[in-house]
Amino acid sequence: MQMLKEAIVRNGKAINQDVLLVDSFLNHQVDVALMEKVGEEFAEYFREKNFSCVVTIESSGIAPASFTALEMGLPLVIMKKQTSRIMTGDLIQTTVRSFTKGTSYELTVKKEFLTPGEKVLFIDDFLASGEAAFGMLHLAKSAGVEVAGMGIVIEKAFQAGHQRLVDAGIDVYSLARVKSMSENHIEFLD
Amino acid sequence: MQMLKEAIVRNGKAINQDVLLVDSFLNHQVDVALMEKVGEEFAEYFREKNFSCVVTIESSGIAPASFTALEMGLPLVIMKKQTSRIMTGDLIQTTVRSFTKGTSYELTVKKEFLTPGEKVLFIDDFLASGEAAFGMLHLAKSAGVEVAGMGIVIEKAFQAGHQRLVDAGIDVYSLARVKSMSENHIEFLD
Repeated sequence: MQMLKEAIVRNGKAINQDVLLVDSFLNHQVDVALMEKVGEEFAEYFREKNFSCVVTIESSGIAPASFTALEMGLPLVIMKKQTSRIMTGDLIQTTVRSFTKGTSYELTVKKEFLTPGEKVLFIDDFLASGEAAFGMLHLAKSAGVEVAGMGIVIEKAFQAGHQRLVDAGIDVYSLARVKSMSENHIEFLD
Repeated sequence: MQMLKEAIVRNGKAINQDVLLVDSFLNHQVDVALMEKVGEEFAEYFREKNFSCVVTIESSGIAPASFTALEMGLPLVIMKKQTSRIMTGDLIQTTVRSFTKGTSYELTVKKEFLTPGEKVLFIDDFLASGEAAFGMLHLAKSAGVEVAGMGIVIEKAFQAGHQRLVDAGIDVYSLARVKSMSENHIEFLD
């Protein structure tokens, strides 16, 4: 997606070979007009798959997933990293290790929001080694739900996540695939 | 906002006199079409104030704030409850006690995303006693930013937050003001 790649080159900062800072337009300050275009792009690509809902993980996935869900006319389900004391009922949980934050968290979803047999589209801001995506897949499987597509805003294509997901049979569509990066230089795949 | 009140009555659950569960359309499963309408309603009310950005707190405020920001043609700034190891630079922080989660957290924003002198619109999903709103006000003040409006999706009007904010000179616009509630009954103000 050309507009996104331009935003990454213009406003992103490669801190080192591993860490890409995009907090000026994606996950702290958010360019919502760009996120609307991101949602349209995902909707266009995944439209024919007849999903029943869009799923994301709080909190950086919420903006792009909201616009995707709106464009596709679907509800959004936000998997939680933090539970609250009013989050009761039949919960499904799995532990996810976060590379970026250097921590682990319990990914949680209420069973009632994922109906066995339904086909869901997972949207997230980043794909690197795929921990969050596989955590999400694990929860979906526990709920009896099929993840028939994954839309990723920015992929670190030099990490193993994409291939691991493709090997697991997932249709992964990443809008910007970063091949390599270093201070002051970001190179994309294709 | 009639459509929102109907959703609350139809899909909300008053667990007791204090806790309103709206996780089937607002903060776990999200009715994004309703959130788009919420954004349009806030934009309509606040349009003439010439804000420079919309501010919210992760993560339940992000969906309504995203649609509000899009409708108003403004960027969105998400104040963080959790910091990551790549969130460096000049940070502003304050401690907020969360009534719902029964915990405290450090509300954090990068100084570079709030420019001294600018006028911001704060959007959040809930207003009760006002802890999150006052935490946000405190950060804004530290950044030299004026919070010239607050758009709240659901207000527990039987708690003190609204009046405390009005007393602080804030223009608060709540789309649904819950006057009282008990199991199986929710009553709205006006």
